[in-house]
Amino acid sequence: MSKEIRLNAFTINSPGHLSAGLWRHPEDQSHRYTDLRYWVELASTLERGLFDGVFIADVLGVYDVYGRSPDAALLNAAQVPINDPLQLVSAMAAATRHLGFGVTASVSFEHPYPFARRMSTADHLSGGRIGWNIVTSYLESGARNLGQAAQLTHNNRYELADEYLEVCYKLWEGSWERGAVKRDAERSMYVDPRQVHEIGHEGKFFTVPGFHLSEPSPQRTPVLFQAGASARGKQFAARHGECIFVAAPTRAILRSQVASLRAETVRQGRRADDILVFNQITVVLAPTDGEARAKFDDYRRHISRDGSLTLMSGWTGIDLSGFDPEQTLEHVESNAIQSAVEAFTTADPGRTWTVNEIADYCGIGGDGPVIVGSPATVADALQAWIEETDADGFNIAAVVNPGSFTDITDLLVPELQRRGVYKRAYREGTLREKLFGREAGLAESHYGSRFRI
Amino acid sequence: MSKEIRLNAFTINSPGHLSAGLWRHPEDQSHRYTDLRYWVELASTLERGLFDGVFIADVLGVYDVYGRSPDAALLNAAQVPINDPLQLVSAMAAATRHLGFGVTASVSFEHPYPFARRMSTADHLSGGRIGWNIVTSYLESGARNLGQAAQLTHNNRYELADEYLEVCYKLWEGSWERGAVKRDAERSMYVDPRQVHEIGHEGKFFTVPGFHLSEPSPQRTPVLFQAGASARGKQFAARHGECIFVAAPTRAILRSQVASLRAETVRQGRRADDILVFNQITVVLAPTDGEARAKFDDYRRHISRDGSLTLMSGWTGIDLSGFDPEQTLEHVESNAIQSAVEAFTTADPGRTWTVNEIADYCGIGGDGPVIVGSPATVADALQAWIEETDADGFNIAAVVNPGSFTDITDLLVPELQRRGVYKRAYREGTLREKLFGREAGLAESHYGSRFRI
Repeated sequence: MSKEIRLNAFTINSPGHLSAGLWRHPEDQSHRYTDLRYWVELASTLERGLFDGVFIADVLGVYDVYGRSPDAALLNAAQVPINDPLQLVSAMAAATRHLGFGVTASVSFEHPYPFARRMSTADHLSGGRIGWNIVTSYLESGARNLGQAAQLTHNNRYELADEYLEVCYKLWEGSWERGAVKRDAERSMYVDPRQVHEIGHEGKFFTVPGFHLSEPSPQRTPVLFQAGASARGKQFAARHGECIFVAAPTRAILRSQVASLRAETVRQGRRADDILVFNQITVVLAPTDGEARAKFDDYRRHISRDGSLTLMSGWTGIDLSGFDPEQTLEHVESNAIQSAVEAFTTADPGRTWTVNEIADYCGIGGDGPVIVGSPATVADALQAWIEETDADGFNIAAVVNPGSFTDITDLLVPELQRRGVYKRAYREGTLREKLFGREAGLAESHYGSRFRI
Repeated sequence: MSKEIRLNAFTINSPGHLSAGLWRHPEDQSHRYTDLRYWVELASTLERGLFDGVFIADVLGVYDVYGRSPDAALLNAAQVPINDPLQLVSAMAAATRHLGFGVTASVSFEHPYPFARRMSTADHLSGGRIGWNIVTSYLESGARNLGQAAQLTHNNRYELADEYLEVCYKLWEGSWERGAVKRDAERSMYVDPRQVHEIGHEGKFFTVPGFHLSEPSPQRTPVLFQAGASARGKQFAARHGECIFVAAPTRAILRSQVASLRAETVRQGRRADDILVFNQITVVLAPTDGEARAKFDDYRRHISRDGSLTLMSGWTGIDLSGFDPEQTLEHVESNAIQSAVEAFTTADPGRTWTVNEIADYCGIGGDGPVIVGSPATVADALQAWIEETDADGFNIAAVVNPGSFTDITDLLVPELQRRGVYKRAYREGTLREKLFGREAGLAESHYGSRFRI
């Protein structure tokens, strides 16, 4: 049988995510993001489609590089306004039984002592369905608003992130023994204090002497998601990550990224299949190829050029408002721009990429690939992506909400199931058990398990 | 008509709250605190009983004064283990339409920039039903685990709290103009940037230059709850608080506290009825007085003496394990102990209070009064408390969960309604509109409204 394909829904607690300007499409309901019913309905749709999880992006700050102002971000709802992702979980968890929840949080937002309690709480309330997308950086404007003059340097950032994770592992894995909670009325012992241990952490960035405030949750450590791209980032991902997000524009690039991630994972003493790799992707579905193409063309007419360049400027740190729209970018001295141009060029080697063309390309689904077609066409493409790259699945962004996800559940999933490459039911157990078919907690080979008592 | 009586349910995301040891009672289900269904059922019970809100206490730290160790707290589930209160809200909000949610958070847990976004998110998702219980201090062990050597001094703490509130007001009231969100596809304008303002805050404790990340929520500023007891605390409460929690053991003490709080509120340029005062109370209900008394005696047999003294030691900062159980405390040199002894003595002037008697008294409902009887007896008492003290209602703690709240909804509320002192339906609108019958947002006379644009 062909390799199973896994699907994650990629969303954000904001009216705008990766398809800039699509809030103007008449079918889009993203503005309902402040309404709990919107999220509960979305969770039900995704669980009906047997998605492994819904993954909620977050930024704490504003995309203010483009035009050196936040105006374009506000005009185009480029990930602003944006609300706290974590609070969506309990309402969605109450309405579902299996769907996982990936929550984005930067190690710079909050001290690890209260943060570890937030994650344990979410894991308890969802019955062990929580993932944490570990972000090591954030927007410069976020740093300023937290009263920090500038972000840490790149390497320092990972040093801090490593210590942050260490504190979390000690709290989650090394503080409460399994069975510490007795609830023994006869002996008048709710918790046996001999089985709860202070972590005594004294590091460079954090001092946490005490024990964890939460009793052990079903997974203890949430499933760890990571998306590191640099060499140092890849090392961090291979040490901590269990699900790795990438955004490769072509199969060749993805194949090489997956191979290098698995090799780094093995170098860290883990098994190559201890990580699952998800590629960011956008799909446009309709019953026939022609209808799907027409739908895509309609979507493209709603792209906001400024919104797209606002996101791109934020990601690369280069103000793209300063360039002639018809200018190509080969000669811009920016690593980020060059790697973007390289990715675009690889995606479509026949083209030169002007600023306007980049805006157009990124207008649907940001910097990830877009697949357009009938369920059979899209299924063919997804199978080819998985078979040729050794990736495990896709992190699917919507063009319109919740329409893109409804299309996947109603049109694509049945087709993938017919082909035997998609599950027909969820596994029982925690999110980690569903994803890896092994234990509820961290694998023995995972770095975090060395903090286990 | 007699004055309306308001009820709040007082709970905590932990198996133990104010009635130490009662987790051992066969009817208690507090251990289900990690199960979302427990909270959804509780919310439904409270909304059926037309409670104004459910108020969730929190401590970030452990009661480790008693015996200079956290052991007694763990053995007796004295507010440990304890999970994040905020995440309970969205699931309970999805299952109800009117119930309010008071969430406890200390100004020392988190930076105000992300905290303000959390509250706005909760207010959005609940449709304007959020309150914030502003805590200015926390347990010493919490401070240590946040890497702080010692807590700020008392007055500095309030200085920091005042600035924290100022940052929040600027974000909630002074950043986004009403109507800044246009969602105008024709003009391609989701938000009008001219109507979003950076707050430019530079203070002693915080620097926050940017604008709020969340669009205005129904209430903008959540309903502000406060429980300040000292002179400086009372001033803080009278400036910021809209609902004030007190825990007066007698009507005479409550009357004097309410009068002084209203006077201080007027001194701050607000109206005396701009605040609602809720007294912490515990009720034990059964169809007849005799049955209620038997129920109370049964509850008392489940009190944990150590658990009760663990809480008391934490509140006063005095290790009560060092005293002879039969010793009285008049001569202990501690303001906190003396004010506790004074309160107990006032509550029952004929008694001397030994350590054991204090443990017993505080074993049900902590340091608040307990009323035991049939619905008619309890209603008589509650009416007398309200009429004699000018307080507005009660913050009711459970003895057993959810039984104490089910009893109130099923037995007490119908009796209060028959007497015309309890609402028969919720008002429409936000929590603030339900509580005060006025505007959805902060009153003009409230200090926070001066930051409004």
